[in-house]
Amino acid sequence: MLTDSPSVERLVDAFRRLPGIGKRTAERLALHLLGAPESEAEYLSEAVRSARERITTCSICCNLTETDPCPTCADERRDRSVICVVERASGAIAIEKAGSYRGLYHVLNGALNPLEGIGPTELRVDRLVKRLEGGEVTEVIVATNATAEGEATALYLSRQIGPLGVRVTRIAHGVPMGGGLEFADDATLSHALEGRTRLE
Amino acid sequence: MLTDSPSVERLVDAFRRLPGIGKRTAERLALHLLGAPESEAEYLSEAVRSARERITTCSICCNLTETDPCPTCADERRDRSVICVVERASGAIAIEKAGSYRGLYHVLNGALNPLEGIGPTELRVDRLVKRLEGGEVTEVIVATNATAEGEATALYLSRQIGPLGVRVTRIAHGVPMGGGLEFADDATLSHALEGRTRLE
Repeated sequence: MLTDSPSVERLVDAFRRLPGIGKRTAERLALHLLGAPESEAEYLSEAVRSARERITTCSICCNLTETDPCPTCADERRDRSVICVVERASGAIAIEKAGSYRGLYHVLNGALNPLEGIGPTELRVDRLVKRLEGGEVTEVIVATNATAEGEATALYLSRQIGPLGVRVTRIAHGVPMGGGLEFADDATLSHALEGRTRLE
Repeated sequence: MLTDSPSVERLVDAFRRLPGIGKRTAERLALHLLGAPESEAEYLSEAVRSARERITTCSICCNLTETDPCPTCADERRDRSVICVVERASGAIAIEKAGSYRGLYHVLNGALNPLEGIGPTELRVDRLVKRLEGGEVTEVIVATNATAEGEATALYLSRQIGPLGVRVTRIAHGVPMGGGLEFADDATLSHALEGRTRLE
């Protein structure tokens, strides 16, 4: 049967390596491409290749970019006294979309995860520390994910950066805007209570 | 920001064209590929291209295949008196996986859909009719999807093939195995009642 063909197997495997794509979805995507006009497959193949060739990481903030330094680092209107630390480029994109942040970013490329062999040297912490040496930066906002790894990374960063005389802050965690209490899980509710602020 | 880059935009667009992939998923997949080692992107790009190059349609049953005729059509042990008609290659794969069918297949490449301009000439009906000319085939099992388009196609096929003296049958539709009645929708339950068979 078709799925025994080595080239189809490799295509299914290539799709399965993408995040959130399981076996059945990968098979569905592969079959779609094989059945679609050849130009469709060529378009995807070429888009993947050319995007990967053109996109590099910014030599300053390590964010993904087509130019170096990236548009954010090069933008004179951004507030250069604040750096928001995120695990991945997707985090920076999400914050940028929200539209209220005007400072710079620093992409760690992951979070501390001893089980997977990701220690401080695997992350771009040294490059972050180097950025703080000029004395221009007064605050580092740690926006790593609200996971065990993200929290551990936040703690590690506060210990590394705190002694340098830079204020280290953590983004707030709590009940999402528009979300009813009944939909929030226990950990979120506990966090929301702990992080309560005074109503003025 | 990164998502403004034309090459990233094109990559996101290429993913969005795949079935069941929305904007957010496409962005997530694109960012994953851009952040992953270059070999990952190269693997996907190459897998798409080479699979599309090697896979063609069988000149007999129109199924996707790496060899022509396809392994099923070439297999002497298959029952050549039965042809199971499916809309797409994925249907043949699903039936093949079930493991109980030993006949041949015919892939229509879709179903009748006047709104999208898909009439009988767009489907491979003429090639199916030609396969029946030899007189070897005694039954055509119509396994088009249980949608309005699939049902219309089934009716059309029975009118085209019936006069040729070949028995045309339709696969049964009803409550899925292991499924409780309370989870079945109205149309399925009505079908299940209509299609009831006598318990021996």
